[in-house]
Amino acid sequence: MTATDKKQNLLLLFDRPQEPVFIPKGPKKSSFNVPQSYLADRYKPIGVELFNRFGEDASEKIPVKEIALPNLGEILDLGRHENFSLFLPKHRRLAGRLIDIFLGMRNVDELQSIAVFSRDRVNPYLFNYALSVAILHRKDTQDLDLPSFIQSFPDKYVDSKVFTRAREEATIVPDGNREPIEIPRDYTASNLETEHRLAYFREDLGINLHHWHWHLVYPFEGSPTVVNKNRRGELFYYMHQQIIARYNFERLSNKLKRVERWTDWKAPIEEAYFPKLDSLVASRAWPARVARQTISNLNREVDQIQQDVDDLIRWRDRIYAAIHSGFVTNESGQQIPLTENEGIDILGNIMESSNLSPNRTFYGDMHNMGHVFISYIHDPDHRHLESFGVMGDSATAMRDPIFYRWHAYIDDMFQEYKATLPRYNEENLNYPGVTVDKIEVMVQGGKPNMLNTFWQQSDVDLSRGMDFQPRGPVFARFTHLQHQPFTYNITVNNQAGAGKMGTCRVFLAPKFDERGNPWLFRDQKNLFIELDKFVVTLRQGMNTITRTSDLSSVTIPFERTFRNLDNSRPTGGEALAQFNFCGCGWPAHMLLPMGSPEGFQCQLFVMISNYELDRVNQTTEGVCNDSASYCGIKDKLYPDRRSMGYPFDRMPRPRVDTLQQFLTTNMRVQDCIIKFTDRVVQRPAART
Amino acid sequence: MTATDKKQNLLLLFDRPQEPVFIPKGPKKSSFNVPQSYLADRYKPIGVELFNRFGEDASEKIPVKEIALPNLGEILDLGRHENFSLFLPKHRRLAGRLIDIFLGMRNVDELQSIAVFSRDRVNPYLFNYALSVAILHRKDTQDLDLPSFIQSFPDKYVDSKVFTRAREEATIVPDGNREPIEIPRDYTASNLETEHRLAYFREDLGINLHHWHWHLVYPFEGSPTVVNKNRRGELFYYMHQQIIARYNFERLSNKLKRVERWTDWKAPIEEAYFPKLDSLVASRAWPARVARQTISNLNREVDQIQQDVDDLIRWRDRIYAAIHSGFVTNESGQQIPLTENEGIDILGNIMESSNLSPNRTFYGDMHNMGHVFISYIHDPDHRHLESFGVMGDSATAMRDPIFYRWHAYIDDMFQEYKATLPRYNEENLNYPGVTVDKIEVMVQGGKPNMLNTFWQQSDVDLSRGMDFQPRGPVFARFTHLQHQPFTYNITVNNQAGAGKMGTCRVFLAPKFDERGNPWLFRDQKNLFIELDKFVVTLRQGMNTITRTSDLSSVTIPFERTFRNLDNSRPTGGEALAQFNFCGCGWPAHMLLPMGSPEGFQCQLFVMISNYELDRVNQTTEGVCNDSASYCGIKDKLYPDRRSMGYPFDRMPRPRVDTLQQFLTTNMRVQDCIIKFTDRVVQRPAART
Repeated sequence: MTATDKKQNLLLLFDRPQEPVFIPKGPKKSSFNVPQSYLADRYKPIGVELFNRFGEDASEKIPVKEIALPNLGEILDLGRHENFSLFLPKHRRLAGRLIDIFLGMRNVDELQSIAVFSRDRVNPYLFNYALSVAILHRKDTQDLDLPSFIQSFPDKYVDSKVFTRAREEATIVPDGNREPIEIPRDYTASNLETEHRLAYFREDLGINLHHWHWHLVYPFEGSPTVVNKNRRGELFYYMHQQIIARYNFERLSNKLKRVERWTDWKAPIEEAYFPKLDSLVASRAWPARVARQTISNLNREVDQIQQDVDDLIRWRDRIYAAIHSGFVTNESGQQIPLTENEGIDILGNIMESSNLSPNRTFYGDMHNMGHVFISYIHDPDHRHLESFGVMGDSATAMRDPIFYRWHAYIDDMFQEYKATLPRYNEENLNYPGVTVDKIEVMVQGGKPNMLNTFWQQSDVDLSRGMDFQPRGPVFARFTHLQHQPFTYNITVNNQAGAGKMGTCRVFLAPKFDERGNPWLFRDQKNLFIELDKFVVTLRQGMNTITRTSDLSSVTIPFERTFRNLDNSRPTGGEALAQFNFCGCGWPAHMLLPMGSPEGFQCQLFVMISNYELDRVNQTTEGVCNDSASYCGIKDKLYPDRRSMGYPFDRMPRPRVDTLQQFLTTNMRVQDCIIKFTDRVVQRPAART
Repeated sequence: MTATDKKQNLLLLFDRPQEPVFIPKGPKKSSFNVPQSYLADRYKPIGVELFNRFGEDASEKIPVKEIALPNLGEILDLGRHENFSLFLPKHRRLAGRLIDIFLGMRNVDELQSIAVFSRDRVNPYLFNYALSVAILHRKDTQDLDLPSFIQSFPDKYVDSKVFTRAREEATIVPDGNREPIEIPRDYTASNLETEHRLAYFREDLGINLHHWHWHLVYPFEGSPTVVNKNRRGELFYYMHQQIIARYNFERLSNKLKRVERWTDWKAPIEEAYFPKLDSLVASRAWPARVARQTISNLNREVDQIQQDVDDLIRWRDRIYAAIHSGFVTNESGQQIPLTENEGIDILGNIMESSNLSPNRTFYGDMHNMGHVFISYIHDPDHRHLESFGVMGDSATAMRDPIFYRWHAYIDDMFQEYKATLPRYNEENLNYPGVTVDKIEVMVQGGKPNMLNTFWQQSDVDLSRGMDFQPRGPVFARFTHLQHQPFTYNITVNNQAGAGKMGTCRVFLAPKFDERGNPWLFRDQKNLFIELDKFVVTLRQGMNTITRTSDLSSVTIPFERTFRNLDNSRPTGGEALAQFNFCGCGWPAHMLLPMGSPEGFQCQLFVMISNYELDRVNQTTEGVCNDSASYCGIKDKLYPDRRSMGYPFDRMPRPRVDTLQQFLTTNMRVQDCIIKFTDRVVQRPAART
């Protein structure tokens, strides 16, 4: 067995999270040779019997080194059948301890040993999270490809109804004859509920996987090596700003006004949300939020949370004070200025908050606690022994309409700050000598500047996440938005007298507001969604840049979002390294908003900026940088020196009211149309 | 195979309700020889393969007669994975059709054939209900012993968390080593929620099984043979009156005031309830009701329900008008007087309502619709595609605190009517010459008039209700109230000059009200719970009546409540006949209220009434009459000619303010104490 093979065995521990570790795992039915002393108490008395019983099934035995075992201590306070949330400080602390234990192991053998030992003792969600973070951050395991989270916990992503039927399919129907179980497109609500029009976005598997993965890559608490990543506070701002921009774009596509900020925290929340998800681990459904519920002061001993709604209000007011005074005050009482380039990063860490916040005592934990308040709206003092709602878990939060109302509020605070910054003058925007002469997007066989969207059905295998059922894949078939791949053709005239490097920045926004009027630039700028960003080399004279949509700097391919442990794994070398990080990335199938059947009018914006001012000096570009815009690059600096969101992240310079007025010669706008067709196509290689 | 054996096979169809009918069933692994044409569409293409696969497992083949199959039509409108409620008129109609089909089959062979055909097509809850009713009402199947409902659908009775763990236990641990999975006593809420103190009563498995069974025996709609049972409207009143009396008794035991009627139907309902039950069939959790929700007008196309809260108010006011005017108006506009003895029966049918109501158009469907309004409080217009809450199913309704507030309202209307009736004068109460001289209750080894309660743990097998898992029993261990068996010793002096027959009526009530004051009779009368009622033969002179608590006329034994298909089945003859009906009955373990650790003071009331005025002339007493007080006797008249609840069902005669003043010489009251001890004992033969 090679060292790489040995490492791969770690990944088997993600399989069937509730089935004990001695049960054969994975397609090769590999079985860990669990030392008797490692068995959970329930199984110790019948250990020999179990080994005989399940050992027979195994076609491969994995040796487990017996080591001196640490005391798991309070990590075990969270029961095996409880839910787990990174938003809860107590849960974070437990996760931190387990991560430390995993990171502290001297080699892969010992890591495997301690992981095998803890797997059947620790809460399965907590175990998955801690082992994932450890594998991501250990030098000796970085080349491992974590299975998609949906493989281990499909229950966080798909309609609970699927599981009974999947169990039937797996039990009754032999492997070759199994049919995918279709998840209805509208299963959480109907169109009687206006907000349900956006369900295809909010409940998209890929979007929720992206969000979970983003927070896995950017934990807000833990050791400095885990948290302190380049511009993480700013990226928190930008990634979520783009989510709101995209959500608003979808809303306008669906004839809904932009999302209303959730401002009055003591008033009822109008929107209801019934997630219709079960937790297979907790054997409890995710609690719903009915219409017109109001958050209350929290006093939940079990979570060690005691927090007043007034705290949230105080934190908000102090953050506003910092924004409007231009500095924050750290724990020692020193003033730290919010500078033009670094201020947003500090503010991001304060608002989220991460433990990079310069003063958590004073500025609190606003964004996270907002999630917690909402997720406990139904049982603020735990009298009903209820767990948190979907807002309490980054894997599920984006399903709920209130997520967007909360993040619209957060984003508005960031925008308030951005409005205090110096505006970009023409010099900050222009690239002397470089003119964008023409831009065009095309789909194959289509008309210029006409993009197409439609429904696609794809399958995802649930079987690795369904404990205690017969082996072999069982697929859920889900319906998601998709678009025809397209190509940008950009004509750039370089009259600078020499070859130049540029950064090509591609954004898209709706052309009109809710009333059908053209936008003021100050409003439209917040609606621009980033489609791509890439470096171009400009010869002197005319250049034609051709770029296909699948190369987008914001997305990862469909296959990577849903990657299967067995297939589509990159093979060896650098390509293999850091594949994990690549799990983060907007899902390619959601690159474009839905548009509308009659053709939704958009404005495509292209800018070539001066690469000399954009470039970040680092030795290599890093790998897995294809979704760098929203996710950064692992262990590297963020690959664009400009403020994230540039050039739309500031108020416009004087006398700029419209997008046209904003343009300098190195920018151009092209009207285009997104036409949605209500048809369903099957994914060609349906099973990923 | 004998005819009886053949019939028994019908009961296998209740086993594992979602597993297809061709999968071997029951302890003997019996397999129905399903004609290819009977297979559900999904399985037709792979029928041969399936028969080969599952046929091998079978140790017994059951022939299935191929018959001309009826069109199931709209019965199939209710999906296989939907929830089913008898409170919904649409669902009742579908059930009615299926019952008619089952009742119409000429013999058991044909019944089996059509049942096999429909089992994998029809909603499993609907199938279970319709087949149960058919078996109960067909002459040729009355001797069949229906399995306890909890065996088929344990998910309606036990904590959802149990099922994941049961699946683990069944998959991993060999049959002999399995351990019961303990349901925590407090799993739906904590004592921070005041109402949770009553959870042991509301969530008691036996009580909820009784309630389900009562409504199975007394359907309120269907063909006359099914609905029109002797005094069914009055029994609806009395059985539910006793539930409220018992609930109030428990509340006072727990230092809570009597339940408040739910009167303001347009105001928020303070009480929340989080059932923490899953529907295994629907793969959905039962929706919770959060605190302070308000019912709304219903407009649910899917259920064909459109009903305003104002309708409920109108029906109520019309029923009050009938009560206060002494007559109801039938569909033809004729006035039907509410007579002293029959009025309550009419009123019961009106209020429930059953289809015996003389005017459903005018008096509506109040009690049922109250259940429906509450059960849809979270999604009144189905915009969120939610199913009903626990109040929508008689198997689960009694778990919810609002059940008692609603039924307290209903009961108060009945009491309002009862207050209009002539009061019992001494002649109506007395039994000249008969004097009760002394009464005493004793537990073995205890002090006189001191009763004991405590916790007991018992096990129930879940495995027949858990589809798609390995065979063999898996037990859930639950904790319920229990009491030490006790004996009444009653001394009666018969000075009437001849041997006499009497009906001995035994009731129990709290001695003091919430403030510790003695009761006014007019209040206390509603708190008397019936403990027993039996016929006694009185010799001249002194008689000592000894009666043990297990013979109570309101209860059925623990073993019958939880009866197992395999064991404890009566053998042959009359004892076998009509065993079904006996599934109805208050669970013996809940005969006594909890009392209190310091000893709760009660008043035991005994009355010997004149049997000549009580007796009902029918040729046989019927079998399975041991819980007749709340359930009647199958195919017989209710075995007591007096108004149900006699002598406590009327306002007292003039100048009677207290219980003592109410007594005539044939009655007696004895103070006694119920002492609760907070200890848990195991049921001796733990597995039922």
